[in-house]
Amino acid sequence: MGGPELERLIDLFARLPGLGPRSARRIVLKLLRERESRLVPLAEAIRAAAETVKSCRVCGNLDSRDPCTICAATTREPAICVVETVADLWALERAAVYRGRYHVLGGSLSAIAGRGPEDLAIAPLLARLGTDPPAEIILAMPATVDGAATGHYLAEKLKPFGIPVSRLAQGVPMGGALEVLDEGTLATALRARRVM
Amino acid sequence: MGGPELERLIDLFARLPGLGPRSARRIVLKLLRERESRLVPLAEAIRAAAETVKSCRVCGNLDSRDPCTICAATTREPAICVVETVADLWALERAAVYRGRYHVLGGSLSAIAGRGPEDLAIAPLLARLGTDPPAEIILAMPATVDGAATGHYLAEKLKPFGIPVSRLAQGVPMGGALEVLDEGTLATALRARRVM
Repeated sequence: MGGPELERLIDLFARLPGLGPRSARRIVLKLLRERESRLVPLAEAIRAAAETVKSCRVCGNLDSRDPCTICAATTREPAICVVETVADLWALERAAVYRGRYHVLGGSLSAIAGRGPEDLAIAPLLARLGTDPPAEIILAMPATVDGAATGHYLAEKLKPFGIPVSRLAQGVPMGGALEVLDEGTLATALRARRVM
Repeated sequence: MGGPELERLIDLFARLPGLGPRSARRIVLKLLRERESRLVPLAEAIRAAAETVKSCRVCGNLDSRDPCTICAATTREPAICVVETVADLWALERAAVYRGRYHVLGGSLSAIAGRGPEDLAIAPLLARLGTDPPAEIILAMPATVDGAATGHYLAEKLKPFGIPVSRLAQGVPMGGALEVLDEGTLATALRARRVM
């Protein structure tokens, strides 16, 4: 339908996360109907990003600068927040509470996926601590089994440096109705209850 | 975050139909993580589609051939199915029941949007009937006020040609639980009930 070029474009869009054949067709039709305002700018933006965006050699963030904008900023506090992915880093930046730097591990330790410490950017993290020791390290791992295992492993590795290490609080998420929360979250929230 | 190239790419993805900032960020991170297998092929496919895909001069379908694959096929039956959009044409092709050709109007008549007959591909449709008269015309308009108005207008215009004109059946959609259907659909399905 529409020839091989059209089919290939729809197929590539359909394989992007969160999309499928139906949404891909809708997007491609929109792009082709509005070539000058959508298709051409998108092609140009992809080309520009492919050429300029790379992983920061210090923290692993994605940026067109290297070191990235965050690592290069002189106003950031002397703290390192360790995250699994760039997506997690961006989420924390959007929260706009933390003003330190980051370190992207590139994943979590996983016995099932066969990912060990050497598969993550742990050695570069330890090297950073030697050259430019931060005042605090925050382990912002997801609240999953693998995330917790990664956090514990890192906490052990970080002990010799004598730097305060913390992890994110766990509990009831904002707007979370208790009746729809899982038992694990509720148990954690109860155990970690705070005096008012 | 990540520099202007990254922000622009996320922004362009976020404005595509069905996407938003969250899904756009997810897609862009995926593309940048898998450059060779995703980003480069997508950029290439967009370029190829932009260069080759155009509107069929006969029916208005999008294809890298002109006339399009459907118009050029010698095996299609001598019928014309009139649709509003290329998306509707594709949906009917996926149903794989109709084996004739199509005509894309490019929208529906709309008093509110100020779209009159001269804004749609109605004159080219009438011209087609003169040069290559089909055995049947199917008006596959959506079951909306504008769609119905467009169908009635076309039916009037097509009368002088003496070609049988039909429209899609309206009723209960496949898998449609009666309790969640709107009153209009139920009323139509009752009035158009068929002897078993």
